[in-house]
Amino acid sequence: MTVKNLLVAQSGGPTAAINATLSGVLEAGLNSPHIGRVYGGFHGVEGMLSGKVVDLTPQLSDPEALRHLALTPGMALRSCRYKMPDPKKDDAPYATLLELFKKLDIGYFFYIGGNDSMDTALKLHHRCAQEGLDVKVIGVPKTIDNDLPETDHTPGFGSAVKYVCTSIVEVARDASVYPAQSVMVVEIMGRDAGWLTASSGLAQRAGGAPHLIYIPERAFDPDRFLSDLRELMTRERHVIVAVSEGIRDAAGDYVHADLPGVERSVDSFGHVQLSGAGRYLEHLIKTQIGCKVRSIELSVLQRSAGHCLSATDIAEAAEVGRQAVALALAGESGKMAAIRRLSDSPYRSDVVAVPLEKAAGLVKAFPSDWLSEDNRTLSQEAVDYFLPLIAGEMQTPFAEGLPCHFTFAENFVKL
Amino acid sequence: MTVKNLLVAQSGGPTAAINATLSGVLEAGLNSPHIGRVYGGFHGVEGMLSGKVVDLTPQLSDPEALRHLALTPGMALRSCRYKMPDPKKDDAPYATLLELFKKLDIGYFFYIGGNDSMDTALKLHHRCAQEGLDVKVIGVPKTIDNDLPETDHTPGFGSAVKYVCTSIVEVARDASVYPAQSVMVVEIMGRDAGWLTASSGLAQRAGGAPHLIYIPERAFDPDRFLSDLRELMTRERHVIVAVSEGIRDAAGDYVHADLPGVERSVDSFGHVQLSGAGRYLEHLIKTQIGCKVRSIELSVLQRSAGHCLSATDIAEAAEVGRQAVALALAGESGKMAAIRRLSDSPYRSDVVAVPLEKAAGLVKAFPSDWLSEDNRTLSQEAVDYFLPLIAGEMQTPFAEGLPCHFTFAENFVKL
Repeated sequence: MTVKNLLVAQSGGPTAAINATLSGVLEAGLNSPHIGRVYGGFHGVEGMLSGKVVDLTPQLSDPEALRHLALTPGMALRSCRYKMPDPKKDDAPYATLLELFKKLDIGYFFYIGGNDSMDTALKLHHRCAQEGLDVKVIGVPKTIDNDLPETDHTPGFGSAVKYVCTSIVEVARDASVYPAQSVMVVEIMGRDAGWLTASSGLAQRAGGAPHLIYIPERAFDPDRFLSDLRELMTRERHVIVAVSEGIRDAAGDYVHADLPGVERSVDSFGHVQLSGAGRYLEHLIKTQIGCKVRSIELSVLQRSAGHCLSATDIAEAAEVGRQAVALALAGESGKMAAIRRLSDSPYRSDVVAVPLEKAAGLVKAFPSDWLSEDNRTLSQEAVDYFLPLIAGEMQTPFAEGLPCHFTFAENFVKL
Repeated sequence: MTVKNLLVAQSGGPTAAINATLSGVLEAGLNSPHIGRVYGGFHGVEGMLSGKVVDLTPQLSDPEALRHLALTPGMALRSCRYKMPDPKKDDAPYATLLELFKKLDIGYFFYIGGNDSMDTALKLHHRCAQEGLDVKVIGVPKTIDNDLPETDHTPGFGSAVKYVCTSIVEVARDASVYPAQSVMVVEIMGRDAGWLTASSGLAQRAGGAPHLIYIPERAFDPDRFLSDLRELMTRERHVIVAVSEGIRDAAGDYVHADLPGVERSVDSFGHVQLSGAGRYLEHLIKTQIGCKVRSIELSVLQRSAGHCLSATDIAEAAEVGRQAVALALAGESGKMAAIRRLSDSPYRSDVVAVPLEKAAGLVKAFPSDWLSEDNRTLSQEAVDYFLPLIAGEMQTPFAEGLPCHFTFAENFVKL
């Protein structure tokens, strides 16, 4: 088996575990006798198109480096939101990337990302095959949205769930100190998929909140919301509402679309950037019920909280990275390294290869029957699914009382 | 020395360390041969007026209970925002509380809170003295605002600083992954005192953010802000702005007062409840500069994040509680248990008694020369002051991957 080099890049939104996956890929690459140099593509395929590639090998000589990287949130190789064009219409980016692969003698390419990134990996796999270029292309999943098909869950999701639930328990604790009745609205990420918002129901095990949960898959009815809230307020002094940023009304329109001051913009995949569902509910409660109300948007903290990691998530994220390399070395290409759950309790999983076609650009919906029809509680099946993913505490290293993150020097190779 | 009972209550806003102080008071009370029962007043003096008092002694028989309590955020005895009236105009609440003290044979009363709570403690001290009732009244400081005079700093502040700085480092890390230029505005609590917002400058030691810092003590000039930001954006791709919720313009008006949708309400001390400085800056940047911008309000999370505690803060908070009891047992009354700094490095402090008159209802302003005139950096003196307060990591216990908080059963005594 000829020795070839490895190239890895990251794409899409950050998670707290995506660098753990990167560390797994790099560790397996450094340890394989069949892999020479390990290269990192910066800013995903977009950066690679302009030659932003770094030979990471010399930066990983200290064995502590990989462990530090694994516990660092964000994306050590940075990101892009670049959609590869239809190759029939515009082949130029493909030609440029294949040229890069050849120049650097790349035999293995790993793209860590969500559904859009799997689409990019699939297109590159096809284009390499078409050209007869022997580059094994493996997609490696990550997303806090957990909406990727064919994998039991996505690395990064567990740590996001842990941060969201921890914050809800703390918000509820904070609210509980005052005698006056109050409502707290917590806005959670997830444009189309309610996985993360629904998972906040786990926090009920540590005190009862959240009391109401609104996911984007279910049409939001303001009248029913207000009547459910009024009913709850006869029993609960402090009500916590968990709401997805992406809730829509029965007509499919984002419910906050008409509020003044709400921002709407569109990214390069055509996704609407959302902000304001929490503020909308706050406004609704204030004007229609008139009690003390506050909304909190967990914002980017929920995807980058390296100080509140799920130990299970980090361990699995690294293993997915290692196994992605093992798959490529075994000759697989055009595959995604997916997590397969073997049992809930004790929790066990392994990593298997699934065709990228089954994940690329596709979305795995949250099973509607996992959240009760009254938007209040998770099914036992849902609890059994979510609970193992947040097990164990872990955090990024601290120095001088502050988080200390791993950073690569951006010494781009001369091409 | 006659054996008397101890009563303790909490007031004002929650902090992540106020229960550590409570645990210190209770520990010292349980360990003293001169103290019989330890009682907790629920919902501060307001709850005590309606007899909400619990004998905590039987709930603390497990030695682990105090340690669990110390690591639980929020307020285990809950809170109130009740202003004791001028006793010349309305003596009724004083008479009720003194009657409560007599009925429960209270010899020692501890009120844990901020400047308004110190005012309540002082009034109760005077009223007991006037009646000849031998109750030692000690005020015990807490507030994330750090604006209490006569104490080097307040318990709870260090953990809030740690959470704010940690969040800023993570927000900056999150922003750094994208190639597009962006501005993130982080809104921090502190209505009148810029201590907490200024302390976010410590986070620069872990990556450079925040780049601009706006405190309420300094008039906010939108034109200068925009020109400073534009200048920074020629050098920094991702700019992080830390802003206090209480920034005002040169005329002393809250800068966001004119924005539509901004909520304003007033609490029982006449303090305006603020929300919107971050949103105001976001709006300003979007309309005047037009780049990608997002605002994040750290909201109540910054005062209740039991999952991100400063070990130094928790240890000191408990010690202040223990020493407050020692002061009362030594015969002090009408005093506040204050922290005195002995050295910055290695950091050492002790607890001393100061007259409540010097703190009650008063505010300690942030020293303006600790933040550079261009709102960018802390002075060395400021860094030396802040840095020891965030040293060491600690968190509330977790169970099943979720925070596990200590709770008292509310078995109110029969009076």
